[in-house]
Amino acid sequence: MSSDLGRLSLNTMTTKGWTLRRAVEATAAAGLPAVGLWRDRVAEAGLDDAAKLVLDNGLRVSSLCRGGFLTGLGDGREALDDNRRAIDEAAALSAPELVMVVGGVPDRDLLGARTRLAERLAELVPYAAERDVRLALEPLHPVFCADRAVINTLAQALELAAPHPARTVGVVVDTYHVWWDPALAQSVADAGAQGRISSYQVCDWLVPMAADPLVSRGMMGDGVIDFASITAMVRDAGYDGDIEVEIFNETVWATDGVTVLETMKQRYRELVLPSL
Amino acid sequence: MSSDLGRLSLNTMTTKGWTLRRAVEATAAAGLPAVGLWRDRVAEAGLDDAAKLVLDNGLRVSSLCRGGFLTGLGDGREALDDNRRAIDEAAALSAPELVMVVGGVPDRDLLGARTRLAERLAELVPYAAERDVRLALEPLHPVFCADRAVINTLAQALELAAPHPARTVGVVVDTYHVWWDPALAQSVADAGAQGRISSYQVCDWLVPMAADPLVSRGMMGDGVIDFASITAMVRDAGYDGDIEVEIFNETVWATDGVTVLETMKQRYRELVLPSL
Repeated sequence: MSSDLGRLSLNTMTTKGWTLRRAVEATAAAGLPAVGLWRDRVAEAGLDDAAKLVLDNGLRVSSLCRGGFLTGLGDGREALDDNRRAIDEAAALSAPELVMVVGGVPDRDLLGARTRLAERLAELVPYAAERDVRLALEPLHPVFCADRAVINTLAQALELAAPHPARTVGVVVDTYHVWWDPALAQSVADAGAQGRISSYQVCDWLVPMAADPLVSRGMMGDGVIDFASITAMVRDAGYDGDIEVEIFNETVWATDGVTVLETMKQRYRELVLPSL
Repeated sequence: MSSDLGRLSLNTMTTKGWTLRRAVEATAAAGLPAVGLWRDRVAEAGLDDAAKLVLDNGLRVSSLCRGGFLTGLGDGREALDDNRRAIDEAAALSAPELVMVVGGVPDRDLLGARTRLAERLAELVPYAAERDVRLALEPLHPVFCADRAVINTLAQALELAAPHPARTVGVVVDTYHVWWDPALAQSVADAGAQGRISSYQVCDWLVPMAADPLVSRGMMGDGVIDFASITAMVRDAGYDGDIEVEIFNETVWATDGVTVLETMKQRYRELVLPSL
């Protein structure tokens, strides 16, 4: 592993076309120390085989995506069960962080959705704590408030995390979701002071956007995000964990994965590394 | 005019296909007291004729759209000149409020864009004050941060307004832009306490979104926004001005304007009026 890549992690969504095996082997070959995994790819490979594959390739799992979707109407049993399975999977993979995309607004009652979320998160915390998995609350860009996540700023994620121990509930800083936030510097500092930064994920905000904001994430340098300042905030907040590149983008997905990995390394060295 | 429509205003963008004359006459015929005007329609009609047309139809102008775009690189002279013209036009139309869409990030320096904005706003304030026009800062949904407005929450708009008198710099509360904001209730209350609510605009957030978020605004009731709670916040903040319906939406634009006006009245009566 090149020492300057010692914190760079490939989120497997970036090379969506690859099997888990292909992604893990290519990540190791590219000199990266870590992978961020999605549950569907893990399920395809089989949980035990996936864990062994990562280990055999000398990698660590930076995070597992994803738990969450806890805002639904009804008793929420199904979602809670699924989250417990996700926690178990994270534990089996030695993934320290389970990324939580918390869920949207099923009706028109935004406050109700947030209340259900807080209640159901509280139910999951002891289960996660016993398995030494941290629930990493991911504030999503407000464009996703209706359909994916009713938590849209880092400050709001910290408020949701506050009743719980920092070792069991953290927050994700994903540049795509937080770059616009006028309170970002303060919130990142707060997250760091609380020991709650679970993950730092980097990708760019493209202009113009793709028709679907979900796949409008770009390679670092292709959009408007200032990685130097956000990375410096995260550094100054004391975060020393992995830095994941997670890109949902049809053009990136149509590109050969090895090329994507090389571009990712180059952009990381140019735009992120100098501020670490 | 039906007395229960005494605060309802048609923003002419909602009936985009209409000339100014058609929009003004139909608004009056529909029993509404006010119109929100866009500068392009005013220019087509001619400024003096537009002012006369509104007056002759017994209407008032709730707001003029729009000034702003003050974040560009360079000396900003052109943008400032255009904003002075917009202020003059608002004065000529007896429009008390000039809606400001402040401009996006021309490079990767979001803080730089916000700094230029604050400086250029300060240059415009005396000019607007002399003409008794209020600059109504509109926080846009964060999905527009890159390309349209680096002000994305009401709290942030209030901070930008703070150095200036409330009679010259206000803020717009547009449900589409602010509905997701976890600090909304507090920010609306603050805006009211400061006497800075320039305009209350209503339209809905559609799910799924249109491919272009600019035209994903929907008729009240067609999306996920809870108009009862946001309207109550605005009411409790002491706002007693006009309530504009401003919808950018291809389907609405393809519908006959008279039908749009009738639907708008019905939805207003159902979803907004009960909370006023």
